[in-house]
Amino acid sequence: MEKNGNNHKLRVCVATCNRADYSKLAPIMFGIKAEPQFFELDVVVLGSHLIDDYGNTYRMIEQDDFDIHTRLHTIVRGEDEAAMVESVGLALVKLPDVLNRLKPDIMIVHGDRFDALALATSAALMNIRILHIEGGEVSGTIDDSIRHAITKLAHYHVCCTRSAEQHLIAMCEDHDRILLAGCPSYDKLLSAKNKDYMSIISMWLGEDVKTRDYIVALQHPVTTDIKHSIKMFELTLDALISFNKRTLVLFPNVDAGSKEMVRVMRKKGIEHHPNFRAVKHVPFDQFIQLVAHAGCMIGNSSCGVREVGAFGTPVINLGTRQTGRETGENVLHVRDADTQDKILHALQLQFGKQYPW
Amino acid sequence: MEKNGNNHKLRVCVATCNRADYSKLAPIMFGIKAEPQFFELDVVVLGSHLIDDYGNTYRMIEQDDFDIHTRLHTIVRGEDEAAMVESVGLALVKLPDVLNRLKPDIMIVHGDRFDALALATSAALMNIRILHIEGGEVSGTIDDSIRHAITKLAHYHVCCTRSAEQHLIAMCEDHDRILLAGCPSYDKLLSAKNKDYMSIISMWLGEDVKTRDYIVALQHPVTTDIKHSIKMFELTLDALISFNKRTLVLFPNVDAGSKEMVRVMRKKGIEHHPNFRAVKHVPFDQFIQLVAHAGCMIGNSSCGVREVGAFGTPVINLGTRQTGRETGENVLHVRDADTQDKILHALQLQFGKQYPW
Amino acid sequence: MEKNGNNHKLRVCVATCNRADYSKLAPIMFGIKAEPQFFELDVVVLGSHLIDDYGNTYRMIEQDDFDIHTRLHTIVRGEDEAAMVESVGLALVKLPDVLNRLKPDIMIVHGDRFDALALATSAALMNIRILHIEGGEVSGTIDDSIRHAITKLAHYHVCCTRSAEQHLIAMCEDHDRILLAGCPSYDKLLSAKNKDYMSIISMWLGEDVKTRDYIVALQHPVTTDIKHSIKMFELTLDALISFNKRTLVLFPNVDAGSKEMVRVMRKKGIEHHPNFRAVKHVPFDQFIQLVAHAGCMIGNSSCGVREVGAFGTPVINLGTRQTGRETGENVLHVRDADTQDKILHALQLQFGKQYPW
Amino acid sequence: MEKNGNNHKLRVCVATCNRADYSKLAPIMFGIKAEPQFFELDVVVLGSHLIDDYGNTYRMIEQDDFDIHTRLHTIVRGEDEAAMVESVGLALVKLPDVLNRLKPDIMIVHGDRFDALALATSAALMNIRILHIEGGEVSGTIDDSIRHAITKLAHYHVCCTRSAEQHLIAMCEDHDRILLAGCPSYDKLLSAKNKDYMSIISMWLGEDVKTRDYIVALQHPVTTDIKHSIKMFELTLDALISFNKRTLVLFPNVDAGSKEMVRVMRKKGIEHHPNFRAVKHVPFDQFIQLVAHAGCMIGNSSCGVREVGAFGTPVINLGTRQTGRETGENVLHVRDADTQDKILHALQLQFGKQYPW
Repeated sequence: MEKNGNNHKLRVCVATCNRADYSKLAPIMFGIKAEPQFFELDVVVLGSHLIDDYGNTYRMIEQDDFDIHTRLHTIVRGEDEAAMVESVGLALVKLPDVLNRLKPDIMIVHGDRFDALALATSAALMNIRILHIEGGEVSGTIDDSIRHAITKLAHYHVCCTRSAEQHLIAMCEDHDRILLAGCPSYDKLLSAKNKDYMSIISMWLGEDVKTRDYIVALQHPVTTDIKHSIKMFELTLDALISFNKRTLVLFPNVDAGSKEMVRVMRKKGIEHHPNFRAVKHVPFDQFIQLVAHAGCMIGNSSCGVREVGAFGTPVINLGTRQTGRETGENVLHVRDADTQDKILHALQLQFGKQYPW
Repeated sequence: MEKNGNNHKLRVCVATCNRADYSKLAPIMFGIKAEPQFFELDVVVLGSHLIDDYGNTYRMIEQDDFDIHTRLHTIVRGEDEAAMVESVGLALVKLPDVLNRLKPDIMIVHGDRFDALALATSAALMNIRILHIEGGEVSGTIDDSIRHAITKLAHYHVCCTRSAEQHLIAMCEDHDRILLAGCPSYDKLLSAKNKDYMSIISMWLGEDVKTRDYIVALQHPVTTDIKHSIKMFELTLDALISFNKRTLVLFPNVDAGSKEMVRVMRKKGIEHHPNFRAVKHVPFDQFIQLVAHAGCMIGNSSCGVREVGAFGTPVINLGTRQTGRETGENVLHVRDADTQDKILHALQLQFGKQYPW
Repeated sequence: MEKNGNNHKLRVCVATCNRADYSKLAPIMFGIKAEPQFFELDVVVLGSHLIDDYGNTYRMIEQDDFDIHTRLHTIVRGEDEAAMVESVGLALVKLPDVLNRLKPDIMIVHGDRFDALALATSAALMNIRILHIEGGEVSGTIDDSIRHAITKLAHYHVCCTRSAEQHLIAMCEDHDRILLAGCPSYDKLLSAKNKDYMSIISMWLGEDVKTRDYIVALQHPVTTDIKHSIKMFELTLDALISFNKRTLVLFPNVDAGSKEMVRVMRKKGIEHHPNFRAVKHVPFDQFIQLVAHAGCMIGNSSCGVREVGAFGTPVINLGTRQTGRETGENVLHVRDADTQDKILHALQLQFGKQYPW
Repeated sequence: MEKNGNNHKLRVCVATCNRADYSKLAPIMFGIKAEPQFFELDVVVLGSHLIDDYGNTYRMIEQDDFDIHTRLHTIVRGEDEAAMVESVGLALVKLPDVLNRLKPDIMIVHGDRFDALALATSAALMNIRILHIEGGEVSGTIDDSIRHAITKLAHYHVCCTRSAEQHLIAMCEDHDRILLAGCPSYDKLLSAKNKDYMSIISMWLGEDVKTRDYIVALQHPVTTDIKHSIKMFELTLDALISFNKRTLVLFPNVDAGSKEMVRVMRKKGIEHHPNFRAVKHVPFDQFIQLVAHAGCMIGNSSCGVREVGAFGTPVINLGTRQTGRETGENVLHVRDADTQDKILHALQLQFGKQYPW
């Protein structure tokens, strides 16, 4: 692994697996690309980015004008926990050839999902430095184990909140290697205020929809308790049908249980219900506009408890998937969302409220 | 994963990858097997246990009369870091089928090697409880990253030293889930005192060798700095040749770099040198006798800085592989073992000394 | 691989990957199960049987009351040729552990798909006898290469037609090891005549539909020319919309290109069109009734050119996927199905005709 | 897969797995490289080329001044049949990413080993043309199944003998796509006559050895009957020890059983016996000189029954591994080599004889 002496540019490998991590990595990638005298950027795309059912979101990266150096199929079908493990395995079988070819000085990894663990494991064992984004947070789920395991494999940490920083230090990470930088997607969020949002809202929710008068729903399976999280999703849909407001529902991510959730949507007729619009993927900058002007966001996405705080949009966070995350006052937690009524009541409380931002 | 109510026996899966982890897991496995009213034991064998070059050590497990439920080839050839990552990948592709078949309540994992990370990752993502043996220790190498990552994936911790326990607590593990139990191999060590050791010494080192008058050498590659560790091994052999005492050299483990070290041994003619005996594997109970009565043990094995302390045998610990581990006063650290003279000098200092135990 | 002497039962492993091969293997499996004094049957399920999008067809096997000994996820997501190769690879990484556990005397493999090649390769290299069903046929596509490669790896051949037998002999297979037995699914077909078919037709096509007055469409991607086969599917749907008869459309199989075809169906609104019913899977015995009483079957399924001949139902075979297969006079070939008009014209010619059977 | 129009150079991918296939592929690679106006050459190296125990023979390719575009670890450890299957699987998981990157018009594959089957399978399923070298031969072993399966996956055939050509035609391959070109290594063999061979013989067999007065032994395991082939190797070594001539023994290839054979060599003390020289690898051009001037070659290598015919050196072919291959009159077949005496007798018959060439 010869590194040239003085004028050596830092070779940075950014590996992105899905829509969610790309929204965090993209601002960093733009930053790296803007300094070609210091950095060389290699982009590796894997995971659900390359899967049709998840919207072929690798196209977002092409549209942002990044060269994709390597594409790796890494998802084993099966939609259960076994398939998740096998997918990590598939990534680990394939990544070394790529890393040997690219020879990066550092790899940037985001978050707490199984694909990120594969990336961190391969880089750590191959003696490549790892910069981990958004470590140190605590949500109270299996994601914590993975996020913290990645922290222990990583060498540098860019974290989002004061308490995440403190948690990293508590886990014995070296203070000098932690940067408290805030959430990378906030740059984009904060620069998003004055855009023409009405055409975006019309496009995704229909011509006649007003700001603050629609809902965005985004719920993922909880892999440690799939059955319960599917039940909760069913209750959420029932509550939304009763609540009777125009609602954009995003399909869940690739985790174990997602197929079952899609089946629940079909069973409830969401795809053809006049009040609902069900979509696989909304480009991130448009998604920002949609949540910024929604009457309410509901679900268990980290986006709800994190990014949406930038706009003061009311959020209903269901179940335990984000338990323990720091959230703004705009978030109403419904931890035991086990009846339709509880969820409906939360919708009545939050919908249309305006929190400061 | 139906679990029957009251009379449910705990299904325990013990997965062992090599000679070293088996020496720690065996006492636990005997304990589990002794209580059939409470436990069912499933033994999974993978990694270098199944490889001829590493002594086909799965036979130790058979000789101890355990049923091996599953054998998995998981080592990808290549003897470099890439092959280590791919081997983790291969294990992750294969383990879910096994775990789905065995449906253990808990998996017991030992140590800090790449195979152990594969085991912990698969169990964590499949919602199987993990009991991790010998976490919390600090050695100052890549092993630390892996050991701590496994800690974060594990649910219960059985640790060996007071400071390991404190380090686990510092890393935010729940105190209630940590058991400070000492090193599992100590039971065997301490019960080993009065055996007939002379025949064992004769068998492995020759008829005419006296106690305290031979050396045991066991050196592994350091995967984060392979080149340097091979150089150090070369200097060690030179020093041992000069020192001119009967010496048992064990072949290194399966880590990246081991092939190169074997080549160094060949180049120096160790296999045919009258003073040397080079072997792949010594059964653990015999190994204990050999180190208990040696004039000195040299190398960078964790065994040197840990188990050998039970006998007060002088130990020379070379390089940084065990840096940071707690060691007894019987250990002389030669951190920068970069000349033959330094190592020779250490041999002269330590050989034949008797420390209290 | 100890085999007991005189009273040894033959251990037969049947591995099934999808709806299509199971329809051929099931009659054989029933036969084996009926002779427990001679045979032990192990059933291995892999491939698209275990995938939600393809109807979780492993349930058919459970409903037929076979014990499934092993389930293996073997499909890598990606829906292109690369993913097909990787899926073969995944199967080959996993199958040896299973075969070492089951130690079959013989493995039964059906057909010409990528999963079957994985099965035959693993058995051949592990010195397990292979009985191949439906070899020797010639269709003029990539399937031929795979089918013939499996033939060369196999030891015994059960073929369906006289010309298949002759082709096997021409390829230098030993005549003594070839059994011309006809198509295994014909037993079921021929015993299917007198059942109550009207309720089945009502269930799948609607209350008001009459026999000979509906269409069954089943078209798969052609992996050597995906683009063209998607175009052809689009033209077929257009022709069917124009033709304006009640039509049951089955979703295509897991081959590269299938996702694109599903998208074409969505774009044309087939799922909500009043004349169409789009389904993932019809149980085989019901499917038989549906094609037996259809006005016409259209597509490029081997089922059209083979099984449907048992009923004299008119068939329109599109494109080159079945080129070279022997077919009955009930089949109209439209090799260059490159305009909507050609296909429409074929529908007008064939629909409602009655061929002898 | 865009291909440029008129001036398109043919992109040729040559994939080589080991010393043996490289000796056949190298002359073709030199030929391709000599015509850069027509061809682009991509070299992919995998299999035992990259393994230390097999001599890291990828260095031969570098010494021949070819750029190696991709190196893939594809060998799973285990040295049994299961590991061979898993190695095919590992190659199939990795090759598609490489082929998608290189986008070759044609792939050149040699021979009949498990790695070649992986190459042919991946190319066939990805719609890449395959040129197969040395198909159509018949040896009477498992190699036949693999060789013929590759034939059925391949599109073009370059074969070595008239009867191979006829066998390809018999297997229904298109005559227009078969080129009877002779063995590619013969070019090198025939140009090798006048070199300074004495220094090569001295280097590998010792100073005092005369031409026609030494033996070259090269025996591989037979994977369908490993036990028997190890026994035969033991008898061969006994016979060679009795025969008491200077002998060069090459280590066997990576197939299942090879470890056991190496152990037999160790047990018999071959590595330190004054009459024997045991080596992993001899560069092909030197190997040619050694066999050309040997008193006899013994073993079961295809090289014995094929290349050595170019020099009239006496050959003793043991067992069934090459049964059915066409051989010259210089070859003495000892099919049932089940006693030391039979082999010794053959040595007495053949050693030092001179056949015409």
